[in-house]
Amino acid sequence: MSIRVGIVGISGFGGGEALRLIAGHPSFDLVYAAGESSAGSRLVDRFPGVPQSLAGLEIERWDPEALPDLDLLFASLPTGASAEALARVPESVKIVDIGGDHRDAEGWTYGLADVWPEQIRGESRIANPGCFPVATLTALAPLLAGGLIAPSNIVVDAKTGISGAGRGGDSRFGYAESNENLQPYGLLEHVHMPEMARTIARLGGAPAEGLVFTPHLVPMTRGLLVTIYARGSASTEQCLEAARRYYAERPFVRVTERPPQTKWASGSNLAFVSYAADPERNLVIAMGVVDNLGKGAAGHAVQNANLICGLPETAGLEGAPVWP
Amino acid sequence: MSIRVGIVGISGFGGGEALRLIAGHPSFDLVYAAGESSAGSRLVDRFPGVPQSLAGLEIERWDPEALPDLDLLFASLPTGASAEALARVPESVKIVDIGGDHRDAEGWTYGLADVWPEQIRGESRIANPGCFPVATLTALAPLLAGGLIAPSNIVVDAKTGISGAGRGGDSRFGYAESNENLQPYGLLEHVHMPEMARTIARLGGAPAEGLVFTPHLVPMTRGLLVTIYARGSASTEQCLEAARRYYAERPFVRVTERPPQTKWASGSNLAFVSYAADPERNLVIAMGVVDNLGKGAAGHAVQNANLICGLPETAGLEGAPVWP
Amino acid sequence: MSIRVGIVGISGFGGGEALRLIAGHPSFDLVYAAGESSAGSRLVDRFPGVPQSLAGLEIERWDPEALPDLDLLFASLPTGASAEALARVPESVKIVDIGGDHRDAEGWTYGLADVWPEQIRGESRIANPGCFPVATLTALAPLLAGGLIAPSNIVVDAKTGISGAGRGGDSRFGYAESNENLQPYGLLEHVHMPEMARTIARLGGAPAEGLVFTPHLVPMTRGLLVTIYARGSASTEQCLEAARRYYAERPFVRVTERPPQTKWASGSNLAFVSYAADPERNLVIAMGVVDNLGKGAAGHAVQNANLICGLPETAGLEGAPVWP
Amino acid sequence: MSIRVGIVGISGFGGGEALRLIAGHPSFDLVYAAGESSAGSRLVDRFPGVPQSLAGLEIERWDPEALPDLDLLFASLPTGASAEALARVPESVKIVDIGGDHRDAEGWTYGLADVWPEQIRGESRIANPGCFPVATLTALAPLLAGGLIAPSNIVVDAKTGISGAGRGGDSRFGYAESNENLQPYGLLEHVHMPEMARTIARLGGAPAEGLVFTPHLVPMTRGLLVTIYARGSASTEQCLEAARRYYAERPFVRVTERPPQTKWASGSNLAFVSYAADPERNLVIAMGVVDNLGKGAAGHAVQNANLICGLPETAGLEGAPVWP
Repeated sequence: MSIRVGIVGISGFGGGEALRLIAGHPSFDLVYAAGESSAGSRLVDRFPGVPQSLAGLEIERWDPEALPDLDLLFASLPTGASAEALARVPESVKIVDIGGDHRDAEGWTYGLADVWPEQIRGESRIANPGCFPVATLTALAPLLAGGLIAPSNIVVDAKTGISGAGRGGDSRFGYAESNENLQPYGLLEHVHMPEMARTIARLGGAPAEGLVFTPHLVPMTRGLLVTIYARGSASTEQCLEAARRYYAERPFVRVTERPPQTKWASGSNLAFVSYAADPERNLVIAMGVVDNLGKGAAGHAVQNANLICGLPETAGLEGAPVWP
Repeated sequence: MSIRVGIVGISGFGGGEALRLIAGHPSFDLVYAAGESSAGSRLVDRFPGVPQSLAGLEIERWDPEALPDLDLLFASLPTGASAEALARVPESVKIVDIGGDHRDAEGWTYGLADVWPEQIRGESRIANPGCFPVATLTALAPLLAGGLIAPSNIVVDAKTGISGAGRGGDSRFGYAESNENLQPYGLLEHVHMPEMARTIARLGGAPAEGLVFTPHLVPMTRGLLVTIYARGSASTEQCLEAARRYYAERPFVRVTERPPQTKWASGSNLAFVSYAADPERNLVIAMGVVDNLGKGAAGHAVQNANLICGLPETAGLEGAPVWP
Repeated sequence: MSIRVGIVGISGFGGGEALRLIAGHPSFDLVYAAGESSAGSRLVDRFPGVPQSLAGLEIERWDPEALPDLDLLFASLPTGASAEALARVPESVKIVDIGGDHRDAEGWTYGLADVWPEQIRGESRIANPGCFPVATLTALAPLLAGGLIAPSNIVVDAKTGISGAGRGGDSRFGYAESNENLQPYGLLEHVHMPEMARTIARLGGAPAEGLVFTPHLVPMTRGLLVTIYARGSASTEQCLEAARRYYAERPFVRVTERPPQTKWASGSNLAFVSYAADPERNLVIAMGVVDNLGKGAAGHAVQNANLICGLPETAGLEGAPVWP
Repeated sequence: MSIRVGIVGISGFGGGEALRLIAGHPSFDLVYAAGESSAGSRLVDRFPGVPQSLAGLEIERWDPEALPDLDLLFASLPTGASAEALARVPESVKIVDIGGDHRDAEGWTYGLADVWPEQIRGESRIANPGCFPVATLTALAPLLAGGLIAPSNIVVDAKTGISGAGRGGDSRFGYAESNENLQPYGLLEHVHMPEMARTIARLGGAPAEGLVFTPHLVPMTRGLLVTIYARGSASTEQCLEAARRYYAERPFVRVTERPPQTKWASGSNLAFVSYAADPERNLVIAMGVVDNLGKGAAGHAVQNANLICGLPETAGLEGAPVWP
């Protein structure tokens, strides 16, 4: 079965990773690519190593009303740029929105695929979770679902590679200024907070009061780690065991005894979670690692697409991480 | 068809990349892994993201006389460590030696797969080319074969990522000392020189007199670029056209007009070649880019294995490069 | 006035930075250098850019009973290696121990120079604080001293460049494995905890109960950031103002409104502190940035040496940070 | 003696390094800073670690006809932006132009300070050499002056850190795209060629025919290495000895037997040169290392300023390189 697929936002990092995954997908056939800065060039001009079967595909200027015959569209547009445009895509086209505009939108399903796969199957409009929320929620879900931690007063200290800041010209993200530099930003005000709080509350059955989220830019291209401090009296082993049970049948989440490192997930759709707890202090530390462009963006999007297209969930996502 | 495969040298970078590629190969079934520093542990202990079907495979201490039933063995051992040991592997086991001990050895075929695939098919003992030679020879082959440059007085200025120095504990390759550092080494004496000279002579029909080779360590994990200065009166376009013809039917070599960048090949088995010539100065600059662990080691080894196993040459090697 | 200075542990990163600072110090005259791995070579063999006046100084094997006539010794030895040996150094030689063996030792003064300079002047045995504690304590001191936060239940999420792991051969700290990797380690058990807890209690006037400390290795050579979550009802402006007053006369601590970045301190002895508070949530986030080899090690040691030698505190430490 | 100094182009990397060096200079007093993107802010807003005595200096919009009373101006403007403007600076103000507009201009002296210091003293308009030429010419000068190599058919394979591409917004120089990437560029057409050819001819007494120059961008912030292939029959030892003699009285050039690494010069005004020759092949390999922002830009500019101001040549430039 061949599914006719399009990508809009091909010039960005999320779009580029979607291209790589779609090119290697057994059921997806890329027939449409659109992008702002690269419109008019061929895929091979932008991606010199793209498979030769796709090399000549011309990148078009994005127009939701002039799409070719498509079954599925991946949208990887800057936040704010997709809400109006995606509304004009024909209903018959399934959409996975990697961007941030539909995570709390009417008519869209929040695609936290490792946690709620059954709620995604059968839908046709999926909002991919943000990269920080997906690492946080994947680590917390087993603890919240099992009542091992309280949903309130959670502190999320998050660290992401610089591709998470998106492509574009700000010299703050230039090599010379970002290299050998570690930068906290957006304290007490990050855009991902509501998504995180909403979902923690949904998982934990009570409001995520007092949630704290502090992102940091780390001098690496890919990779995302959250170190989460929560209150609960479970032991390390109880947390690990809860996670092992919770994810027993899920193909992409690995529960490890060692603290996970970002490189473990690089280039893959895997998420790693681990825990260290001190019941005497009523403390649980949860850790989550993803590739911000994989499970944090394009990999997760392909997983969601597999679910809504009735394909095996792991189709096109079986590649092991790149090491070293 | 399932081919029973083993890897020896799994702890190193070449062995790790072989594992990743074999895990994703449609016809290879990994049944044996051996390594010095990791013997006794399971694959998942070393490679936390390895596919779950391989996670429990125990890493054994390498003993060429105590192999399980194997069809194919990838050897990724330090130079000097494989000659004697591989001689004790049963004849029925095909071998691709990623290490450097058999590149000029009796009974072994030099596996420069993009150039001489027909000489590899049907063989059972393949010596994989070194990472520097493969980039150099892939760039030069069309020019030498077409008589566009002389085989003498070629200058190869080579730059490799630090994984090319191998895994191991030398603090010179430690992060703090290698980062933000660019290091030339092995001037006028590099171990890859004879392999390069021998093959240039074979391709060019005359001795590679006056060959100069200068390697440099670049602060990046993967990637290899050679910038080659040769004498010849061809134009840039003539060089490009010669390469396009030479590699027209070859799946892994891309001829580009732009100077290639190492990231174009990252994680893939691709080689990129390009040329800039100035006939007035009798000068041809040839450039070659590979991932030193891909086409420069494990990717090339899988390509050679495909050839000697009668499989499609691209089996398991179709993954597009990782970007960014 | 010329002060005769020695360094033991010259081969390591802390020792190397001490050498750089001492070479540029107006009153210090380096007359002795000792190191394990480099004994027998000259300084210029190890440090090709060392000033020519020091180039020929021979590195000796460390013997505390065979020192030349010295006024001051900087010791930068691995933890555990200095306690016994430094006891054998003549009393007349002032010592600043950059290593970790004397931070709670009888007869030694804990040299948190930006906080307690007066307690350091006049002493002759100074234990330099650890790199993580110094960033943490410098950020917290004004809040603890002013009663703006409680000393209990503080969470310190710390991130350091890889030079913090010391020089040496572990392949975990090799370039290829550390680059593009972010690694949490030592959860709930880090060696710096007692030093931190002890000093927080001293500053805050009550035990540092429930202190949590999580270090992470960041792929950069130098730089250290702590992001600290504490309980208190002060506003951001109150915290900033408390710190401005606390450090008004101190030359090396900068209080900034923007969250500090590690590159701001690179190569210098500066510490940057900033705060973001949410009184409604009873939350104070404190941040501290240092160069782990500067204020976190050798720079701080020179500052302590200036204090005990009766020199201007900033002597030899006025260099602005290196940017970019 | 206090010399009143200004910097124009303070926002860029060269301007920032000039600021750092001037701030630590014993005779320079910074009284004027101008910059395009930072006009209106104070120095401390741009450079959080700037010495407190300079923190409040306001960055002005550059206007050559509205300068304060200055003795000396450092200009670090993009190529093309300084020719017209600097002509309007009063004659009484000495100028060192770090930019590229005056290297072959009437009324300006080419400031290759380590080679021709005597020609610089007493002048008042100095054109700082480009970063690639300075490394190349410093390595070649002793060989050309001594007739050990021919000035023709020289091949310069050059590698620079990414700060060499300047500050600014091109996403090609963004972290995510530059990291783990090695990029050749400007083949057979680089802007530095005429400067290099002109000076090689001047040093060698004959035209630099057939000069080849290939720059590469290396994923590091600072550092520059040239690997030069020339024709000559001298031995390695003869080349080293020629360089030792040539630079015997020069404070900033170090002749080493080992191939120099870029980190050796980091943050300093040093240049390292070394040689490897094979008389049988009529081959001389010359290597030169500088910090592209130090000797390749701002350090060299301060050295030139010292010379034209009658100061000790090393004033403010004695800082040892930063390691690691």
